[in-house]
Amino acid sequence: MRAEIVGVGTEILVGDICNDNAAWMSRALADIGVDVLHHQAVGDNRARIAESIRLAVSRADAVLVTGGLGPTQDDITREGLSDALEIPLEREPQVERFLRDLYARWGRPMPEANLQQADVPRGGRYWLPKRGTAPGLAVQASDGTRVYCVAGVPAEMREMMSDHILPELSALAGPATLAYRSVKVVGVAESRIAELLDDLFRAGGNPAIAYLAGHGEVRVRISAKAVGLAEAQAMIEPVEREVAARLGDAVFGYDEDTLEGVVGRLLVRHGRRLACAESLTGGELGARISETAGASEYFLGSAVTYTAEAKHAILGVSQEVLDGPGVVSEACAREMAEGALRAFGADVAVSLTGAAGPEPHDGADPGTVFAGLAVAGQPSAGRVREMHLRGDRAMIRRWSEQQALDLVRRHLQGLPEPPAATVPVSASGN
Amino acid sequence: MRAEIVGVGTEILVGDICNDNAAWMSRALADIGVDVLHHQAVGDNRARIAESIRLAVSRADAVLVTGGLGPTQDDITREGLSDALEIPLEREPQVERFLRDLYARWGRPMPEANLQQADVPRGGRYWLPKRGTAPGLAVQASDGTRVYCVAGVPAEMREMMSDHILPELSALAGPATLAYRSVKVVGVAESRIAELLDDLFRAGGNPAIAYLAGHGEVRVRISAKAVGLAEAQAMIEPVEREVAARLGDAVFGYDEDTLEGVVGRLLVRHGRRLACAESLTGGELGARISETAGASEYFLGSAVTYTAEAKHAILGVSQEVLDGPGVVSEACAREMAEGALRAFGADVAVSLTGAAGPEPHDGADPGTVFAGLAVAGQPSAGRVREMHLRGDRAMIRRWSEQQALDLVRRHLQGLPEPPAATVPVSASGN
Repeated sequence: MRAEIVGVGTEILVGDICNDNAAWMSRALADIGVDVLHHQAVGDNRARIAESIRLAVSRADAVLVTGGLGPTQDDITREGLSDALEIPLEREPQVERFLRDLYARWGRPMPEANLQQADVPRGGRYWLPKRGTAPGLAVQASDGTRVYCVAGVPAEMREMMSDHILPELSALAGPATLAYRSVKVVGVAESRIAELLDDLFRAGGNPAIAYLAGHGEVRVRISAKAVGLAEAQAMIEPVEREVAARLGDAVFGYDEDTLEGVVGRLLVRHGRRLACAESLTGGELGARISETAGASEYFLGSAVTYTAEAKHAILGVSQEVLDGPGVVSEACAREMAEGALRAFGADVAVSLTGAAGPEPHDGADPGTVFAGLAVAGQPSAGRVREMHLRGDRAMIRRWSEQQALDLVRRHLQGLPEPPAATVPVSASGN
Repeated sequence: MRAEIVGVGTEILVGDICNDNAAWMSRALADIGVDVLHHQAVGDNRARIAESIRLAVSRADAVLVTGGLGPTQDDITREGLSDALEIPLEREPQVERFLRDLYARWGRPMPEANLQQADVPRGGRYWLPKRGTAPGLAVQASDGTRVYCVAGVPAEMREMMSDHILPELSALAGPATLAYRSVKVVGVAESRIAELLDDLFRAGGNPAIAYLAGHGEVRVRISAKAVGLAEAQAMIEPVEREVAARLGDAVFGYDEDTLEGVVGRLLVRHGRRLACAESLTGGELGARISETAGASEYFLGSAVTYTAEAKHAILGVSQEVLDGPGVVSEACAREMAEGALRAFGADVAVSLTGAAGPEPHDGADPGTVFAGLAVAGQPSAGRVREMHLRGDRAMIRRWSEQQALDLVRRHLQGLPEPPAATVPVSASGN
């Protein structure tokens, strides 16, 4: 079954809101095995609403329209729908009663104009809402396409979808379920992953592979469609195993795993407590680690030392390093990590120092970053990773954090450092 | 001028990402007086990409396509564009050289498949990217419609839009301009602002007022449309003055101002250097302050002390406070700020301690937060703000940071603390 989503509202077209409804509906439809092939967004204009619905009806089995069902003059989705399907609107007495009762209960006079919300296309169905005042509408076009209209307020949309439309479409779509599995990778560029998985990607079809790069990591998403969830998952399983085998220890997790969450679980499992020493990231590394509820079990804190003086005073970075190789150096990263270990009494400490740009910092080009690791009682476990990243300030910071977290992950998992060639040198697009 | 935005990427249609690019582009186009009449989103399917572009070309003067310009096999926007316009692609030697140089500089072999990024429609133009590897494309359809293709990575899209496409379209769109002015407010709830500005809001029309709440601040946006920018701005000016007068010292800035940026400018102007002491925010306060390029001029660092031990060891919080009122207390916030002042040798220090939730922390309910201020050589300038916030972990953290930054702002501007009643007690929706 093919579906299309039409978002109605000038606020979408002027960028006042992002069309989150379409994203939510798409996920919900994918979960019941319905393919969404197009999204459209159109303003509060009767002719253009009608044209968009006609187009959607011409190419989909189910059309879901959101927005423009309110009580005000610019809510004209009902009229656009009527024009598109050439089906007149009729005032539905039950809905009218529902509206009048609602206002009576609120103790407020109902503007007569609000009764437009009681208009239903002839022969169509409606669902009274638990939230808000707009009934959901369902009507069939002459070619059999099912058209559904729901309010644009997210909670009202979700109510109509969950209570009525998704169950109906799920029954119509029959027992076809889409299952997903994401393999999450850090430290390898998307193009390199594409090379490694080229034949699996080309095999295409069902199961299929897609790449999603962003925020310093790549998600390899495997999807499969089958009559049931168990069958779809069984189709994914061998592909997932093959993908994981080829990508090796660059795989840090699956599905909703975050790198900081994975590191947190490893710290708990090994009974270790972590401290950070930050410079260019300004506290963002600590902020990410502590975003996870329960982080206080393993996170002690972070010394954000933005100046050379602070690195010396708080982390004990030596005057020799500051006067010699400087703050953007392997030596400084090592001393910062060791300093954090001492200052917080941590078991493991990780440091980041570098130039986030746009200007060079202490003689180092923007994107030059060192991440250091120190382990209590194991001086030989100490290591430093050097990076040369490209991108804007935010991207360089984000990539640096990924590398610092990966350093901790590899230490805790007993993995060697990746070969230098696989340490990403570009922050763009990944 | 009428524009249409076509988002390419199966990740949009399955709801993996929200089409934020379309929202950003719509806002940017509205700002230069270009009307966006439709959005479309389509998957990584050559025929459907071509069909969507054809439809957009048939009804718009400018078509903006995002996504599908990457180096992998599922990046096929170029091919879809070529099919839609019936214009062949040609390998552009300059782009090829750019790509080869880039990889050479990275010291990495370039997968030959990446050269598809050097393909440009015959007779079209291209812009080499500063970020990423995908050139922006511009080509004219046979009916004169301008079609632009940019990468889907938001930072890369915005670069091409800001540097090339928006200036070009702005020149073409001519003198019908929409001007905006945002008055930014911290520490006052949206509903209170709506009360204060009710008559201005009801006046409506041109200029018009809108409220946008989020991230712990409220933006009051005044918009006006006129034949020229100067005329539109002149219409905004008296409304802006009235809004600012009614909202008083809760106004911290305008337009793109951020609270951390405003604080940074004040620190520079007064020649003061700031340090932070954080607990529940985990480093996010420091991260935000240091996001601004040039922050090293006034930001020394942040002691993120997530445990009581770290508060004692690094910030010198006294055992009496830890054993007495505890870490979520006015006394602890005060000692943390004083400790940061000492540890960093700062002129001004601000602290945050509290319970971010979901569990109570040290006996304090989630949302109980104290922000402390300490000023070198001026013990009497010290103050603590107490908050009882509602919301999830991320909201409570964000609100806390806003309050800490506002504490510093008011100190540097010589403003009194706001009356307790205006310190927000709910983090929901604002």
